[in-house]
Amino acid sequence: MLIRKDICLKNIRKMSEKAARNGLMFRPHFKTHQLAEVGSWFRGFGVDRITVSSVSMARYFANHGWQNILIAFPLNVLEIQEVNELAEQIDLSLLIESTDSLNFLEDNLRHNCSFYIKIDTGYRRTGMDSADHTGINQVLDKSNQNPHLKFSGFLVHSGNTYNAKSIEEIKAIHDDSLSKLNMLKKTFSGDYPDLILSIGDTPSCSLMDDFKGIDEIRPGNFVFYDLMQYRLGACRLKDVAVTLACPVVAKHPDRLELVIYGGAVHLSKEFVLQADGSPNYGAIASFDKTERNQLLEGCNLMKLSQEHGIIKCNRENFNKIRIGDLLAVMPVHSCLSMNLMRSDYLITEQD
Amino acid sequence: MLIRKDICLKNIRKMSEKAARNGLMFRPHFKTHQLAEVGSWFRGFGVDRITVSSVSMARYFANHGWQNILIAFPLNVLEIQEVNELAEQIDLSLLIESTDSLNFLEDNLRHNCSFYIKIDTGYRRTGMDSADHTGINQVLDKSNQNPHLKFSGFLVHSGNTYNAKSIEEIKAIHDDSLSKLNMLKKTFSGDYPDLILSIGDTPSCSLMDDFKGIDEIRPGNFVFYDLMQYRLGACRLKDVAVTLACPVVAKHPDRLELVIYGGAVHLSKEFVLQADGSPNYGAIASFDKTERNQLLEGCNLMKLSQEHGIIKCNRENFNKIRIGDLLAVMPVHSCLSMNLMRSDYLITEQD
Repeated sequence: MLIRKDICLKNIRKMSEKAARNGLMFRPHFKTHQLAEVGSWFRGFGVDRITVSSVSMARYFANHGWQNILIAFPLNVLEIQEVNELAEQIDLSLLIESTDSLNFLEDNLRHNCSFYIKIDTGYRRTGMDSADHTGINQVLDKSNQNPHLKFSGFLVHSGNTYNAKSIEEIKAIHDDSLSKLNMLKKTFSGDYPDLILSIGDTPSCSLMDDFKGIDEIRPGNFVFYDLMQYRLGACRLKDVAVTLACPVVAKHPDRLELVIYGGAVHLSKEFVLQADGSPNYGAIASFDKTERNQLLEGCNLMKLSQEHGIIKCNRENFNKIRIGDLLAVMPVHSCLSMNLMRSDYLITEQD
Repeated sequence: MLIRKDICLKNIRKMSEKAARNGLMFRPHFKTHQLAEVGSWFRGFGVDRITVSSVSMARYFANHGWQNILIAFPLNVLEIQEVNELAEQIDLSLLIESTDSLNFLEDNLRHNCSFYIKIDTGYRRTGMDSADHTGINQVLDKSNQNPHLKFSGFLVHSGNTYNAKSIEEIKAIHDDSLSKLNMLKKTFSGDYPDLILSIGDTPSCSLMDDFKGIDEIRPGNFVFYDLMQYRLGACRLKDVAVTLACPVVAKHPDRLELVIYGGAVHLSKEFVLQADGSPNYGAIASFDKTERNQLLEGCNLMKLSQEHGIIKCNRENFNKIRIGDLLAVMPVHSCLSMNLMRSDYLITEQD
């Protein structure tokens, strides 16, 4: 996996300037890269608080000097010992979405930490319904009985923007989310004047300009972007900072197919759908180009097995490409692909 | 990831006895587990030759004492230095499917190794068409000019059995493959009397009893099996040796959904389709059971994101399961899931 540092820095700069322009705290999600070195690039832009999606990731970044970490995943009670250790060492924030977790923390939390209430504004993955004021009140009342817990605010991840068919649809989801969150702020800021509103998805953070009432953004994917974000309109091809370098290992002229060493264990099996309904597991570019990520026309990564990738090609490109050539594959989902390539990557300043 | 050693041993014993009964050499594929410890269990059954799917896997198992390794992946010419190092140290076998690779090896191979010709009998992933006798003759002629190369035989992987809708269909694919391979043997055994025929897919090796003309089998997945193999009829539920232990982290009574800590970075995004056309990313069992892998009725792992899994539940099981409970998730594809969990597994003798 090749990581273009110069492009990452541009992506970070752009997002951090956008946050500053809109008076937003910037708490980037580090699950996309999971790498201390990439994480360190954010410090140059004043970032001192981050988001992760597991206790083990929090431990990793705490070991690399990060002192303010939000674990944006529902509390896993089986990891309470590690949570307590982290809470003792750093400014730890948890995600709470039920009184069940709070009952458990009442008996088991030993050190101070903050918490956000996870709110669902329509994604329906997890979180409390934004209209469930009774439930939210119960959670807040219960949390007040725990001297170790401090309420930070309401957090949402509008992952449904990933299924949007247009930028207008992303805007509709974002606006709806904002309006629900602002309603919550209005309702609860009497009792909690410092509560903040935190949003996270990369499509909204990249594309939207209205962050009315929002206090914090937590995008992660934007540091690398990927084919999915490009398809959503959230980035340009040249903003995609990661490519998997895949050698061509076989050619099948009868069906214009190339076989690459690049499969599910490198890219993951995430796909986007082509216009004809067939899956596409990554976009194909060549390395001998002047413009960043200029895609090879008529080439489609149509199938993946464990180590093999099968590229359907037009005749012109098929004839040009030879066994042993390296192709640049832009992952569909850079978070999943980077997770697979964490022990086999190279940071470069240019191709 | 919990690996049940007792079940693995039963699976290995069964396959190794089947090989012995049919006079077949047994060269199991180690890409499924990629673990030296699991590999060592095969030695007790007389296994001394193995299959892997990458040069790095060959290196790993060579370092763990394996002396006869086939890299069952088209030669990646960019790794020739590592290939030469391995060929010097162990009995290495390569996979060849074009004169292009042989031209490259002519100038670059420094040590003796064997090779198989990869044959395509219908899967259409890669390999030479079994009917392409002219092409195969060219490859053999070319290889004869290289004093380092010794021809072993013809190798096929009938991965199309994974798409079969019935055992009859698997049998039809297997029989067709056998007949094509036997035709090749007949044609080429005059010049190469020692050539062998090697087949590999777990569904055929598990379900079929006719191996006429075949000399070697290379199944891999059977050591663990998984939901996909169960759905194909290649194993029983109690033969599945791996389960991912996933804590329940949230409950949503309004839609009878559980959220588990178990996502695409643990299970991969491989899925099987349900009767209604919706995807299923893993089968759900509970840990408090008397019979191995008794599935929880009406529970379906319907969605995965990076760390979250969403289980749709019937009301009875929903009410029984609590936050903090561990559920046993049987992966759809154990090879991909194990690849993700290589640094976080536990070998047990029983649940």
